[in-house]
Amino acid sequence: MDAMMMDAMSKDMMSMPGMASMDMATMQECMDACAAAEQATTICATQMMDCAPTCMNCADMCHTTMRSMLRMQGMTADSMMAMLDACIAMCQACMDACAPHTDSDVCRMCMQACQACMDACMAMKDKMTAAA
Amino acid sequence: MDAMMMDAMSKDMMSMPGMASMDMATMQECMDACAAAEQATTICATQMMDCAPTCMNCADMCHTTMRSMLRMQGMTADSMMAMLDACIAMCQACMDACAPHTDSDVCRMCMQACQACMDACMAMKDKMTAAA
Amino acid sequence: MDAMMMDAMSKDMMSMPGMASMDMATMQECMDACAAAEQATTICATQMMDCAPTCMNCADMCHTTMRSMLRMQGMTADSMMAMLDACIAMCQACMDACAPHTDSDVCRMCMQACQACMDACMAMKDKMTAAA
Amino acid sequence: MDAMMMDAMSKDMMSMPGMASMDMATMQECMDACAAAEQATTICATQMMDCAPTCMNCADMCHTTMRSMLRMQGMTADSMMAMLDACIAMCQACMDACAPHTDSDVCRMCMQACQACMDACMAMKDKMTAAA
Repeated sequence: MDAMMMDAMSKDMMSMPGMASMDMATMQECMDACAAAEQATTICATQMMDCAPTCMNCADMCHTTMRSMLRMQGMTADSMMAMLDACIAMCQACMDACAPHTDSDVCRMCMQACQACMDACMAMKDKMTAAA
Repeated sequence: MDAMMMDAMSKDMMSMPGMASMDMATMQECMDACAAAEQATTICATQMMDCAPTCMNCADMCHTTMRSMLRMQGMTADSMMAMLDACIAMCQACMDACAPHTDSDVCRMCMQACQACMDACMAMKDKMTAAA
Repeated sequence: MDAMMMDAMSKDMMSMPGMASMDMATMQECMDACAAAEQATTICATQMMDCAPTCMNCADMCHTTMRSMLRMQGMTADSMMAMLDACIAMCQACMDACAPHTDSDVCRMCMQACQACMDACMAMKDKMTAAA
Repeated sequence: MDAMMMDAMSKDMMSMPGMASMDMATMQECMDACAAAEQATTICATQMMDCAPTCMNCADMCHTTMRSMLRMQGMTADSMMAMLDACIAMCQACMDACAPHTDSDVCRMCMQACQACMDACMAMKDKMTAAA
């Protein structure tokens, strides 16, 4: 996500109750991690292994979480926290489903992307709690 | 959602740990309510009112929740609960955002669909808790 | 899709250049067929057969086509025609990918839903051509 | 999209009829351009201007096109061409809808991202035609 996009979003955040102090770098990292996890899980789901349905569910949840951050004007602290929790839970489920397939390069890539996405969602939660 | 689809899904559920006792009628109602809420919120988001970003976030979350039920093989009890909670939180945020616009037919329709979706998600949670 | 939603959409269509004469019943049938095809293809993609990637691509395209009709204010005749063509092409690809699996109830259901969606998209194209 | 993902996808393409000669760099650029356009159009759609419904339709189409390239196993040359045409048509519609708003930084960003996405989709079509 480039600097021009983040500037446009940052301006909107300033006018939102309780969001002016949101750490934009943390949010940018979280959106990028969600986008990367959606791509990795989508590729993993094409490998016809038993993790595929979990990977696709994870892809959809990561995508929805990323979009909700692109549209922060439409979020509240409560709904953002709930969405981050759901994204974290799906990333965990996806890592658990891929764990038996560590001999697959694609499953290992998928697990790494899900771990990174989960970490980034947790960082968002920490920053939001600190800002509240 | 027609009977043939539900039959196909029901067969898969039978082989899932802890899901054999899932109430398929409750899940079908929840998927239908999610699909209806996605459509109502998407229409509402075209009305250029300040609820639009919330409505679009709600549309994406309802859609992701519906898909996760279509792919129950890829869900765990924990991730399903977290996704239902996120869907409930977004429906609540959407109803709150539309509440100032009760003079708009479209916002009233959107609020009704979100309330129905929230109720159906809560019914799912109740059945899952009872089955656990 | 219920009558209240269609009324709300119909009012918007009236104010769009070249869309006042759009047949709302045909569009409603097309949206319903797209939604049904998305659900059938998503279920089919969980069956771990070689049609799964095609089914998921078809699910996403049917969903995007349905949403574009929910947001007709954001479509032009050209972009709608191109999207209907892409949806028809993906439904055809999905039917071709499922065709070797006629012993599977789920693949047969998926093929029927894709055929119905393709027919409904073609009916939309016919009405749009007649209205132009 | 990182190198590990592209490697995983490249291996799959090798085994697909008529795709072994697909230019992976062109496809990678197209996926990145689609992802960037989805993000820019989603942000633009939050600005409550009359381009919003077109921007959201464009966001969904760019996303679906990106996913279809992540799942090339599920595409045929015909369905890929039709999806690229639909993506090009939606990007054009989006640029046209944003064109009256050149005083808005966000609309200018959105138009640039849509132009880049359209160019990348056309490059994909050229490479596919050359490889056929």
